[in-house]
Amino acid sequence: MGKLLIVGTVAFDAIETPFGKTDKILGGAATFIGLAASHFEVRSAIVSVVGDDFPQEYLDLLTKKNIDTSSLEVVKGGKTFFWKGKYHNDLNSRDTLVTELNTLADFNPVVPASFKDADVVMLGNLHPNIQMSVIDQMEKRPKLIILDTMNFWMDNTLEELTEVIKHTDVITINDEEARQLTNEYSLVKAAEKIHKLGPKYVVIKKGEHGAFLFNEENVFFAPALPLEEVFDPTGAGDTFAGGFAGYLATTENTSFNNLKNAVIHGSNLASFCVERFGTERMIALEKNEINKRLHQFKALTQFDIELQ
Amino acid sequence: MGKLLIVGTVAFDAIETPFGKTDKILGGAATFIGLAASHFEVRSAIVSVVGDDFPQEYLDLLTKKNIDTSSLEVVKGGKTFFWKGKYHNDLNSRDTLVTELNTLADFNPVVPASFKDADVVMLGNLHPNIQMSVIDQMEKRPKLIILDTMNFWMDNTLEELTEVIKHTDVITINDEEARQLTNEYSLVKAAEKIHKLGPKYVVIKKGEHGAFLFNEENVFFAPALPLEEVFDPTGAGDTFAGGFAGYLATTENTSFNNLKNAVIHGSNLASFCVERFGTERMIALEKNEINKRLHQFKALTQFDIELQ
Repeated sequence: MGKLLIVGTVAFDAIETPFGKTDKILGGAATFIGLAASHFEVRSAIVSVVGDDFPQEYLDLLTKKNIDTSSLEVVKGGKTFFWKGKYHNDLNSRDTLVTELNTLADFNPVVPASFKDADVVMLGNLHPNIQMSVIDQMEKRPKLIILDTMNFWMDNTLEELTEVIKHTDVITINDEEARQLTNEYSLVKAAEKIHKLGPKYVVIKKGEHGAFLFNEENVFFAPALPLEEVFDPTGAGDTFAGGFAGYLATTENTSFNNLKNAVIHGSNLASFCVERFGTERMIALEKNEINKRLHQFKALTQFDIELQ
Repeated sequence: MGKLLIVGTVAFDAIETPFGKTDKILGGAATFIGLAASHFEVRSAIVSVVGDDFPQEYLDLLTKKNIDTSSLEVVKGGKTFFWKGKYHNDLNSRDTLVTELNTLADFNPVVPASFKDADVVMLGNLHPNIQMSVIDQMEKRPKLIILDTMNFWMDNTLEELTEVIKHTDVITINDEEARQLTNEYSLVKAAEKIHKLGPKYVVIKKGEHGAFLFNEENVFFAPALPLEEVFDPTGAGDTFAGGFAGYLATTENTSFNNLKNAVIHGSNLASFCVERFGTERMIALEKNEINKRLHQFKALTQFDIELQ
């Protein structure tokens, strides 16, 4: 059983979509990543920080999902990171209404001793210096370091971001961010430039339009499963990353062919995430549902054309 | 060898993209459809109208591509339909700067006697009454009637459009148009509603984001091939439709599995169309290039995951 180390936010989210709205609910990149990865045979730990307003029931929930929370710091008298956002009608864009960093402002990640030899490190979207600090604490080079980031860090900490990108094997990034990072409109050209920054593999996420996987020789594409209802895209990208990382931690195979499978597993899990608000669907999700939908993914994409 | 009847515009286009601009060049839905279909073993004919300003060299070009132009009416003293458009930076949207209907305003399609038994009828984007008139002229029910349309006809001639849709087997439509036609945001729900209007198969085109094929039980997705350079999206949708229709006219098999292959062939040809302005790439395109790119499509989409 592979070991997966996750660093990222554990948070409260308040979400409004065209289909409804929530009060403060469980959110955060590391939460979604951990829940997605929990569907694989993997030992995982979350390195993060919350305030003592963070309910014990949420901590228990993560523990129940076999996620080690011993390095999820609870700051006494502190408040948990809070994000409030409202999605536009097409669900592909959103406005951030509130961002309260709270305890995250002084977050100093400490990798637990038992995960300093993790097989896979999944660096969720955070300040690149925090991501770098986690890499620096590893006792041996992980088989795979996967980095997620966003435009905010490109705007504000590009130098630090470029440094941490250098040390990663896989970057997951959305299409607009790939374009911003490289100043290339074509995603093929963007991926080429990102390879030159360090990562052997580049995953470009396009939300409801699926995801690309590039290495220097190959490209693979997985669509998002077309759904009757999308309630809330929050956490879909992190769920994708968690499924991707969890599958790779389990299989311990970093070939392009296996990363293709990881992209499919990530897309498959993300297709559930968006069916309910926040983590609701991921918490209730069962193995047989996952397997059934993998069959749908195959039917959706596989064809048998005679090639010459 | 199957027979394919094509109705649609033959036109002059003037195009501006972020990468360059053209004077009046050869364009029109039927032109792109015919050129795409010419890559299959198929007898095709274009029913359309132009003015006598339409160069003989363009007519010769279509004839050379094995397209019957005997029902491409040339109106003496008339002018050819002209469209001028400018694409936005993302190439996914455009402004129409000029539309001169000219001879198209009084177009009265006449299906040539030798194509009244066509296997496949491809109704390019035109007034639904013109599309209906072509269906009415067929001596026997074609194996497959494929209809392309656009939001303009939904806005202005919805009743007539609904009538012609009733008589078609396949509709090709883009995502925004599918949403407009059905008032459903989810493409899955939109496809369900469109099935109820008549068509057994619904193809929803998403431009650079690929295309869905639905019937009432199944869904299939083909991505657009990721390209280093996209110069000009003009005609990509029609090229897709032409490849789709041409392949089906050749194979004369209307099963879901064969329509999947038709979607791949259409996507494959469309990936070439956008590499140059207008019809330039399609005219020069050779068999070995097409076959090579089909291999790329397979590598792009096929995976081998163990299912439970």
